[in-house]
Amino acid sequence: MPKKYSYEQLFTFSKSIFLKIGCSETDAEIATVSLLSADVRGVDSHGIARLSGYVRLWEVKRINASPVIKIVHETSSTAVVDGDAGLGLVVAPQAMQVAIDKAKKVGTGWVSVKNSNHFGIAGIDAMMALEHDMIGIAMTNASPLVSPTFSIERLLGTNPIAVAIPAGKEPAFIADFATTTAANGKLEILQRKNLQAPEGWVQTKEGKPSTNANEIKNGGALLPLGGDREHGSHKGYALGAIVDIFSAVLSGANYGPWVPPFPSYVPMPENMPGEGIGHFFGAMRIDAFRPAQDFKSNMDNWIERFRSSKTVEGEQRVYIPGDIEREITEERMRDGIFLIHPVIADLLQVAAKFNIEF
Amino acid sequence: MPKKYSYEQLFTFSKSIFLKIGCSETDAEIATVSLLSADVRGVDSHGIARLSGYVRLWEVKRINASPVIKIVHETSSTAVVDGDAGLGLVVAPQAMQVAIDKAKKVGTGWVSVKNSNHFGIAGIDAMMALEHDMIGIAMTNASPLVSPTFSIERLLGTNPIAVAIPAGKEPAFIADFATTTAANGKLEILQRKNLQAPEGWVQTKEGKPSTNANEIKNGGALLPLGGDREHGSHKGYALGAIVDIFSAVLSGANYGPWVPPFPSYVPMPENMPGEGIGHFFGAMRIDAFRPAQDFKSNMDNWIERFRSSKTVEGEQRVYIPGDIEREITEERMRDGIFLIHPVIADLLQVAAKFNIEF
Repeated sequence: MPKKYSYEQLFTFSKSIFLKIGCSETDAEIATVSLLSADVRGVDSHGIARLSGYVRLWEVKRINASPVIKIVHETSSTAVVDGDAGLGLVVAPQAMQVAIDKAKKVGTGWVSVKNSNHFGIAGIDAMMALEHDMIGIAMTNASPLVSPTFSIERLLGTNPIAVAIPAGKEPAFIADFATTTAANGKLEILQRKNLQAPEGWVQTKEGKPSTNANEIKNGGALLPLGGDREHGSHKGYALGAIVDIFSAVLSGANYGPWVPPFPSYVPMPENMPGEGIGHFFGAMRIDAFRPAQDFKSNMDNWIERFRSSKTVEGEQRVYIPGDIEREITEERMRDGIFLIHPVIADLLQVAAKFNIEF
Repeated sequence: MPKKYSYEQLFTFSKSIFLKIGCSETDAEIATVSLLSADVRGVDSHGIARLSGYVRLWEVKRINASPVIKIVHETSSTAVVDGDAGLGLVVAPQAMQVAIDKAKKVGTGWVSVKNSNHFGIAGIDAMMALEHDMIGIAMTNASPLVSPTFSIERLLGTNPIAVAIPAGKEPAFIADFATTTAANGKLEILQRKNLQAPEGWVQTKEGKPSTNANEIKNGGALLPLGGDREHGSHKGYALGAIVDIFSAVLSGANYGPWVPPFPSYVPMPENMPGEGIGHFFGAMRIDAFRPAQDFKSNMDNWIERFRSSKTVEGEQRVYIPGDIEREITEERMRDGIFLIHPVIADLLQVAAKFNIEF
């Protein structure tokens, strides 16, 4: 049975777990805000459901709970940040802050990160730019689950891209998406419900089209956005590759098939060429291009025009990226967050492990 | 009958036409290099086939052959460039040069352009960064032909993104793709051959799925990469929107449904909110992140790993973005460029108009 929890309940629990594994007070709060931003925005696969996964990575010493995060190379508009094997949930906001600080001084800031771990959802880091009247960009590579066009090997992660753009009276434009046809979390939902996947989401280990939502477990792979060559999968593959290169080849992290796996029981790849997982962040000050008020007034016009567009029969609205997540946020902050039984059971185990209440 | 021309023949002809409409010697050469880069790379829809279109835009005074291109706002890492209604083929390389010059000084450079016109292919501008050991990025908005997810209105162009990334011994990684399932040029090829389009490329004016390659002429629309919601079209829509906003809302160009049409006989939209078409360029110096040699050696490793990947049965290779275009370039520079009859007829008309030989 799903059960409802308030944001505050989940916050208190998550923070106390991060404190138990040795995070500082500040880091435990930052990690919790990042983690729960997924639950709040409706990305249930990336929120508190992953808390036990982070704990297990800490147990096998793949996550350092008290990292010394530092800039190892920089120019006035760029930096490489070494995450010291910290929680991505902590490393990412700190690296994004470096990008924002540089943008304040020279117009834009660009930060590539090595030696990090899974950072939750990309959107929350991109959104940090909004309050500074900046455009925010966040991306990360991830464990290999995706086959390039014509390949049967898993060489890329779902490598998401998030872009947050401020508006005036309208809410901000916030895109946050995996560079695959569907994110792995979507597939997990179908698995739990014993449903088939649509064509174009996965392929078998021989590279044949499949609608089996469990195909990954059989050695199959997720497909790049586009699905197949005829429908532009080479574009999704290129996007995933760009995210991988910006995040990891620019920083010196692991890339492609060498990205460390999220599940702690999966052995690390051999001959890893870099350190940890890689991320990439960007911040662009609006008034480094034109007065922020002019930009925002045009953004409002853009948003109003697209939102008021005539719809296909049977659909009520044309959405602006971010609309759905914002509405879910309002609802969940007001009414609470439903967790499904397997997640609750998992959290109870974590609670027992550290002898705290849930 | 298709007929073969050497690069030099097409170069001489194209340059003389640009001179005839009033371009300077330098601009005529720059425009020709940009234009023919499409033919040479196999993007036949965007090369010399469009020369007469540019001439017609000049005839109706939508293109200024002797523009004063200038920076109207800047910071150390950013600029807005006003193209003065010049040929996009001339404005774009100049704006990309501004991005490169800024990257030399502060690590990265980012330039948004207003008051420009169609710039040919995006890849050629992104590639300018390569010889400086920089990553190059180029994008542009374009006349509205694409409907956002759930919409039946044409609100976005095919809005391409190009990213060029240097490698060491391996050739550079060069992605250059429309943010739609298929570029309009692909559809034009099917139209000429009287073939159907695959599902997911276009929709009817009521927003129903269609395989009619002529659907655009019936009021239909191209579809964002992904095709439909179930296959991630909201991601292609978001990408196209990001290109539109970076290119036009950041610079003060026209955006969304107000982008000026390429065909000179199509009336300009009413109540245009900006000036001309918009582009966006970026340059990131590799050694602003890490030593260029380390990066290039990792890029070589990345490329070799992906290229040597096991393929789906029936396929010979996994391609690196840019492989196909590079091989076409080698072939066409050596053997010549085939033009189809309608393009030759069109060029003969242009030649007659200016009383020069073709």
